[in-house]
Amino acid sequence: MLGGMQDFELRVPRIIEHAEREHGQREIVTYWADGTITRTNWAGIARDARKLAQALEKMGVKRGDRIATLGMNHSRHLVAWYGAIGVGGVIHTINPRLFDEQLVYIANHAEDKVLFYDKVFQPIIDRLRPQWTSIDHYVCFDNGEFEQLIAAQDGDYAWAEGSEREPCMLCYTSGTTGNPKGVLYEHRSTVIHAMTEVQPSVFDLSPRAVALPIVPMFHAAAWGLPFAGAMSGTKFVYSAVNDGKVLCRLMNEEKVTHSAGVPTVWLAMFQHMDATGEKPEHLRLVTIGGSAAPRAMVERLMKMGIRVGHAWGMTETSPIGTMGAPPGNWDELSFEEQVDLVCRQGRVPFGVELRVVNDEGAIQPRDGESSGRLQIRGPWVIKRYFQADADAADADGWFDTGDVAVIHPCGTMQITDRSKDVIKSGGEWISSVELENAAVGCPGVAEAAAIGVYHPRWDERPLLLVVRKPGSDVTEGQILDHLKNHVAKWWLPDEILFVDELPHTATGKLLKTALREQYKDHQLATVAA
Amino acid sequence: MLGGMQDFELRVPRIIEHAEREHGQREIVTYWADGTITRTNWAGIARDARKLAQALEKMGVKRGDRIATLGMNHSRHLVAWYGAIGVGGVIHTINPRLFDEQLVYIANHAEDKVLFYDKVFQPIIDRLRPQWTSIDHYVCFDNGEFEQLIAAQDGDYAWAEGSEREPCMLCYTSGTTGNPKGVLYEHRSTVIHAMTEVQPSVFDLSPRAVALPIVPMFHAAAWGLPFAGAMSGTKFVYSAVNDGKVLCRLMNEEKVTHSAGVPTVWLAMFQHMDATGEKPEHLRLVTIGGSAAPRAMVERLMKMGIRVGHAWGMTETSPIGTMGAPPGNWDELSFEEQVDLVCRQGRVPFGVELRVVNDEGAIQPRDGESSGRLQIRGPWVIKRYFQADADAADADGWFDTGDVAVIHPCGTMQITDRSKDVIKSGGEWISSVELENAAVGCPGVAEAAAIGVYHPRWDERPLLLVVRKPGSDVTEGQILDHLKNHVAKWWLPDEILFVDELPHTATGKLLKTALREQYKDHQLATVAA
Repeated sequence: MLGGMQDFELRVPRIIEHAEREHGQREIVTYWADGTITRTNWAGIARDARKLAQALEKMGVKRGDRIATLGMNHSRHLVAWYGAIGVGGVIHTINPRLFDEQLVYIANHAEDKVLFYDKVFQPIIDRLRPQWTSIDHYVCFDNGEFEQLIAAQDGDYAWAEGSEREPCMLCYTSGTTGNPKGVLYEHRSTVIHAMTEVQPSVFDLSPRAVALPIVPMFHAAAWGLPFAGAMSGTKFVYSAVNDGKVLCRLMNEEKVTHSAGVPTVWLAMFQHMDATGEKPEHLRLVTIGGSAAPRAMVERLMKMGIRVGHAWGMTETSPIGTMGAPPGNWDELSFEEQVDLVCRQGRVPFGVELRVVNDEGAIQPRDGESSGRLQIRGPWVIKRYFQADADAADADGWFDTGDVAVIHPCGTMQITDRSKDVIKSGGEWISSVELENAAVGCPGVAEAAAIGVYHPRWDERPLLLVVRKPGSDVTEGQILDHLKNHVAKWWLPDEILFVDELPHTATGKLLKTALREQYKDHQLATVAA
Repeated sequence: MLGGMQDFELRVPRIIEHAEREHGQREIVTYWADGTITRTNWAGIARDARKLAQALEKMGVKRGDRIATLGMNHSRHLVAWYGAIGVGGVIHTINPRLFDEQLVYIANHAEDKVLFYDKVFQPIIDRLRPQWTSIDHYVCFDNGEFEQLIAAQDGDYAWAEGSEREPCMLCYTSGTTGNPKGVLYEHRSTVIHAMTEVQPSVFDLSPRAVALPIVPMFHAAAWGLPFAGAMSGTKFVYSAVNDGKVLCRLMNEEKVTHSAGVPTVWLAMFQHMDATGEKPEHLRLVTIGGSAAPRAMVERLMKMGIRVGHAWGMTETSPIGTMGAPPGNWDELSFEEQVDLVCRQGRVPFGVELRVVNDEGAIQPRDGESSGRLQIRGPWVIKRYFQADADAADADGWFDTGDVAVIHPCGTMQITDRSKDVIKSGGEWISSVELENAAVGCPGVAEAAAIGVYHPRWDERPLLLVVRKPGSDVTEGQILDHLKNHVAKWWLPDEILFVDELPHTATGKLLKTALREQYKDHQLATVAA
């Protein structure tokens, strides 16, 4: 027996239609690389997306074809998303910070037909065009080409219809080993994920929200914000430039209430605040994801009266896995307890499920202590990578995230490490992330990386690599003294080395594989001694 | 081409599973008719629902079977919802305030197999049991039977699985003409509707919310709150008694932040506040629906610092059609402008669409002036009534609501009347609702009803029936003077009659059909004069 309600495919064009019809006048502001500001609104985005869909159709784009972008955050990039999806295609956002070899692999593997790009990336195009085998059309976003393409259409276009299980977006993971892998989002998964993000315990979006997403549009679907924002009538402020001064100015001029980005962008903002005394006056929710936020960052934002939403997820999870939000007893907690809670990675919204399993595959209790590999499943979690031969999730849908975590009794998840970064000392696990976070809390330490290196007795012991803050002369002894207050004694690094800089991935994460390679033959001071 | 994300049926038992796993300790408090208070939590509701599903299976309940309730708001009623749905059945909430003839028709039409009921409704059972032809099992919620049934099960039960398009709930509309009609909600429509309700612009639910729904569980699925609350980790406070003193006490003792109900319940609350000086201290969102909230009620609640969400919907729309929420420019509006906006019925969330058509079927502009029949479509809107032979919606999904409305340029919808209640005077429409709302704003007027009665020249003219407040001697002249400031001169009623009481439907709405019948031969004073 079937129910009596209406058929309704959960398709992404319905989101932009809703934004156009119900929130058409809500603005989309862009600060461009040349310092100019342009303004459009959701009605304008929808209108231009229809025109772009027409243009793509004329270029010969067929249902399911991939349309790539190499672009920063701006309104034309947003038009490209909805236009490519609207014509029945798949928007494929490429991270321009990847190495050439990866850029070539990804565009060819995706069989991209069209590439939209910012002119700042023209050198990449010039360099790699001969190696890109499937791209027939190149359109620059900001040299007039894109605007001409739009202007040549009449906009009389009806969005492509079809099944909600069809794909709408492709994002590759920038893994540190092997070839990048593509995650193929569906209309359905994207709509359900966006409905989830609007909720108060996730991004808390409404027509009163003004969001400046610092997270780039080429990172994990910009954390889904272009979809959730349209759905909720959020005003967007985009900046093609990630500079503390510009961001702070935009936040105040446009009365930005919501922002989202990786921890490093907040460090840049803090530097600007310290240097000038300026601060964002209207912010009320800052979402931090991508990697763990240091406690000092969480504290500083909270003391500004801002809710800090510590999020965890990955490209394979659309990306929201968990998000921190005040629990029922929030007002009864001390400030320190509140910070403790916010420093963890939050809880799952309805839809996704988490579990932690040990090396034998046994499910661990939610006791806040039993750590293991974090697994996730749900409607916006990957089943199979693009063009892969086998599923990425097991038969029950569990996808192994590669993270090591504990789950607290209240359901709050806490990442303790990446499974491949865990330091295995005498059969016990030392969290490299906790060591690093403790180290950056020490005055004078700008950045730190902990890796396991060979030890004849313990198998592995921690080596800590530290970048000093400019002008600091912090010593090994001072750092060790600081660490003693924050980690177990047997976790203390056997050696601390000071370096000028640390290697990072294209998404700004520490490149531990490179460090492990570099120090694989390093003889620890404790062993040498 | 299909996408790469996981299969996931949007089934209601996933909601209670989520509540159990992630918000298990959030309380469900019940104030019973005998004045006692019991406490359970989402884990307890889930545990008991599994046991109830086992019990229902043993009773012979099969997939798709209807399981009825005649009950007020309490935790066992909530268990019955999730238990009946969990076994693969359809929960059918019956409004105990209906007439016997309707109660007989509904249960037989639904072919209910089991009936759970409050002992206060035992007389209904005793009276109608001989006429109910399909009910095999009667279980009283509050005489020990229900608890015994639960206690006899071990709870080792896995929720029935199946398609998300299967039905999960049946609610009959208590129309004022013809036989009641059943609306058969689906798992999918219910889950999508609940995800929508959690959003900030609808019910704004999170683990910090404490909701006391005054709307009964037998009214339009309790406005979906039992599902949205479980999804979001909301604490519920139920009262089987709707008394201003009890409600106010519960709201303060349990720190209730959210409440929802028809306008009359707030009138009762105001009377208690005026008599005692007490007020609900923690309320921050009051949702008013079912019929239009008078301006004075909106103002009073807003002056208490409470957000008033004026909602519109019907059983056929699950029920959320529109909900009022602050727009982007809220802070720039004067208090009067804010009240104006809140007095309208709000905007659609993502998913549903509205339009207004005139008598010729032409779509009217969103100009805030062009009124016509309100139509709606979307994933949680009815396609076909239960066991009907034809669709209730047209080929494009548009369902005619029977309401008359305008849509403002910002998308805000404003109900002006029920289409059958509109007074047609000389080819123009007079809104009976606006006349009534203006009249109750006059000091001394407790309630008012406007109906059209025959007029030889104008076809129809308004007759206003007024119930005076206790002790008031307000006159026809005083009311007319008041009305002159609020409605067009040609809208002024031709006659005002004072009556002791007005007839209401089982859901508390004015029974205009009875009034029209009673006054169909009334000769207006203006005609007689």
